[in-house]
Amino acid sequence: MRRDLIAAKECSIARAIAAIGDPWSLLLIREAHGGETRFAGFKKTMGAQPSVVSDRLKRLVDIGVLERHEYSSHPPRFEYRLTTMGDDLFPVLIALNTWGDAYLSGDAGPPLVYRHDRCGHAADATVVCGHCRAELAPGDVTAEPGPGSAKGVDE
Amino acid sequence: MRRDLIAAKECSIARAIAAIGDPWSLLLIREAHGGETRFAGFKKTMGAQPSVVSDRLKRLVDIGVLERHEYSSHPPRFEYRLTTMGDDLFPVLIALNTWGDAYLSGDAGPPLVYRHDRCGHAADATVVCGHCRAELAPGDVTAEPGPGSAKGVDE
Repeated sequence: MRRDLIAAKECSIARAIAAIGDPWSLLLIREAHGGETRFAGFKKTMGAQPSVVSDRLKRLVDIGVLERHEYSSHPPRFEYRLTTMGDDLFPVLIALNTWGDAYLSGDAGPPLVYRHDRCGHAADATVVCGHCRAELAPGDVTAEPGPGSAKGVDE
Repeated sequence: MRRDLIAAKECSIARAIAAIGDPWSLLLIREAHGGETRFAGFKKTMGAQPSVVSDRLKRLVDIGVLERHEYSSHPPRFEYRLTTMGDDLFPVLIALNTWGDAYLSGDAGPPLVYRHDRCGHAADATVVCGHCRAELAPGDVTAEPGPGSAKGVDE
């Protein structure tokens, strides 16, 4: 996977991919957003080998997406809770969900509907510009060097 | 990776992860959104082995994210263009970018800024409810069986 090479790119998309863009990490983050907190639960809902679950839990704790809490001391048992950094992956999940609904549901339609509790309608998640609130489509944005760019600093 | 098991879940997020949720597929989709269309270009910008690039290009064509076009017949040469299905992965990329900007940029700040051409401000992509346009946060939505759910059909 060469996470190091991907992460070294001057691009937050590449860095995010290197951090959490593998199937088991993404699936684990999905389960955590669904309320799962415990090793046995992740193992069951993900259908993954224990070693895979341990590896991804450790990695996500190291990155800062999850926090490990001891919930029983005799014997020691731990649960894994999303941090704010983990909560903030919600837009990634909802964007994957919208795309999967549109293209991977077949004739039957979406397997799940996410209802927006506040307005009562299906959420139909949409990405908008945070400034003008217009919907963002490919071609609507132009990449420029930012403050963290080697080039940007001198320009 | 057991894509088959992940894809079988009754969840569009899991299906999307199984389809395109691996580092090289995601990175290739990023490059395609950046305008790359040719094998040699993908190989160079991704820093991946030729076999990895071939495998992911074929897979993304099979899924329907890319279309393969012959642009030269002597010798035969091909380019790969995003389909509408591929264009519609833009919200996933922009959501990864927002998260990477926030958490993986360090003190320097984001390496790139995506300017919204229409309003002229940094896009600061935000996920909103398509109905009421309120910003969506974790806990704001409730999953219900949809039309494509085995349970949903009888309920």
